[in-house]
Amino acid sequence: MSQDTITIAIDAMGGDDAPHSEVAGAVEAIRETKDIHITLVGKSDVIEPELKKCKYDKERISVHHCSEVIEMHESPTEALKKKPDSSIIVGLKLQRQKKADAFISAGNTGAVMAASLLTLGRIANVTRPTIGESFPTDKGISILFDVGASVDNKPIHLLEFAVMGVEYAKHIFNVENPRVAVLSIGEEESKGNTLSTEAYQLLKQSNLNFIGNVEGRDILRGKAEVIVCDGFTGNVVLKFAESVIPVLKSRFRQHASQNIFKKIWVGMMYGTLKKILKDFDYQEHGGVPLLGVNGISLIGHGSSSPKAIKIMALRAEHMAREKINDIIQERIKDIKQILPKTD
Amino acid sequence: MSQDTITIAIDAMGGDDAPHSEVAGAVEAIRETKDIHITLVGKSDVIEPELKKCKYDKERISVHHCSEVIEMHESPTEALKKKPDSSIIVGLKLQRQKKADAFISAGNTGAVMAASLLTLGRIANVTRPTIGESFPTDKGISILFDVGASVDNKPIHLLEFAVMGVEYAKHIFNVENPRVAVLSIGEEESKGNTLSTEAYQLLKQSNLNFIGNVEGRDILRGKAEVIVCDGFTGNVVLKFAESVIPVLKSRFRQHASQNIFKKIWVGMMYGTLKKILKDFDYQEHGGVPLLGVNGISLIGHGSSSPKAIKIMALRAEHMAREKINDIIQERIKDIKQILPKTD
Repeated sequence: MSQDTITIAIDAMGGDDAPHSEVAGAVEAIRETKDIHITLVGKSDVIEPELKKCKYDKERISVHHCSEVIEMHESPTEALKKKPDSSIIVGLKLQRQKKADAFISAGNTGAVMAASLLTLGRIANVTRPTIGESFPTDKGISILFDVGASVDNKPIHLLEFAVMGVEYAKHIFNVENPRVAVLSIGEEESKGNTLSTEAYQLLKQSNLNFIGNVEGRDILRGKAEVIVCDGFTGNVVLKFAESVIPVLKSRFRQHASQNIFKKIWVGMMYGTLKKILKDFDYQEHGGVPLLGVNGISLIGHGSSSPKAIKIMALRAEHMAREKINDIIQERIKDIKQILPKTD
Repeated sequence: MSQDTITIAIDAMGGDDAPHSEVAGAVEAIRETKDIHITLVGKSDVIEPELKKCKYDKERISVHHCSEVIEMHESPTEALKKKPDSSIIVGLKLQRQKKADAFISAGNTGAVMAASLLTLGRIANVTRPTIGESFPTDKGISILFDVGASVDNKPIHLLEFAVMGVEYAKHIFNVENPRVAVLSIGEEESKGNTLSTEAYQLLKQSNLNFIGNVEGRDILRGKAEVIVCDGFTGNVVLKFAESVIPVLKSRFRQHASQNIFKKIWVGMMYGTLKKILKDFDYQEHGGVPLLGVNGISLIGHGSSSPKAIKIMALRAEHMAREKINDIIQERIKDIKQILPKTD
């Protein structure tokens, strides 16, 4: 391992298809980039047989055994108390012990969020960590923060989401001077609820590239690269958006099932549809980082494919190399100095 | 006019294409149903020439002149003050004066909402009127309340939305015993923000067919016929949903523009796509009622077609015949008696 090697701990017990997707994704990731090492965290007796099926450089993937697994349906708080030797907790602790630079999991989202916060702590001056999901637009991407890391937010949280989101868009998606907007119900400054209008005022005073309010219809239109809202609204919109492609697919299946001619016709259309709608398929995006924790923690869909796991591992490497948390820490400090004191 | 005739006042100056869509929609509506009369409200010198182009029963459509028009971009509160002789205010006043049974407009939504509330007042015991938009599902429809009539809601508002929504679903969409859900970020009782979890508790104590929380992904899946949330979240989701079809269309156009073969292919697919996606086209839905005001007021898209205007007129007739407001008034009174006192 060279000095530049980034070590990624992968929760090998996390996703619906674990450890298959995790192991296969790890093998794909080390093929694609030179200087990463992967530590698969979980029950070695289920990981090892899966690894044996693959051809890979044995120096670059290791297994870190632990005895417990947090299941998808478990309550995060209870599971974290009951299962200290679970892959999520153990994987995150490797990072605290400087044995890993990042952690990724396709497991229980609530547990990964809570464990990341408990194990890694928060970046100084960050009140609430946030998760952002990127939406494809004609012009690139819009990343919506927060999509469920917290609810009942205050205006200052939305400002922090914006600061973290801007650095993420800049350094990970190479967006120059990202435009920032508040998600609201009208473009005018006065439109919105108490939270959004107060957040508008904070953002107006900041030194971010703030363009004002955008509406729900603007998310896919590329009006801003970073859009902030409370985690409740963001989560509802994200989950609605994720349901659109499956619903359309089911409509096409229904249409095809009417008769053999429609079946053949839909079959012929399918390839084109898939190509056109590809970037709306959220399972292809890999995972999303929990920004604001003092380390790197990425969360993927339960249904993450090996490709999604690979994308997450490469994104984790990218975030570690860019030292994104150091940058966020500086920016949050700067911006809090400009603004009047709020809580 | 028979005693059973329902008179619908139509804001003839409202939509982007006014008065054409309004006049043509009125003519289509009287062709489709026997016992309605339509009063077109607006500048007679622009309505009359449009009417002259149509063949229709002159007894069944009349023009009520007024001199002012509230434009789409105007601030509702200012416009209502400045333009007392506008088609929105005059049309709603006809209802208060018992010269009309319902009002429909494709004009400035904020102005129609505010003027309806001012002119018609609220149904007794209703704290906040609400607008619901229906989403197509495999099993029928889900109607989401509120989609923007108010923001910063309290739990009791969501309960009222549910009561009004249930009667609307029953009497206008013929849903037997509609299932009611709270829109949230997880299915468990404890998941959500302060508002949604408190509303959950109120609904649990009500005598409605309450099934618990649903998530953003469940809106199109038909888990409940009536879904309640605050007007900020609902408006964001609705506007996001409305943007999906135009975004997909633009993707298809982009794909078609790549070369002549793709253009021909997309052209061939277009008819099928249109058929499959038809019920996601919100412009086809007609308009939505503002429930909770002491009268009937329906609001349509600015881009309402003659067909959309016709659907709105027929829905307004249906609501008037079902005496939906009398039913809502009884139900709201009943439910407030069951529940512990809240504000």
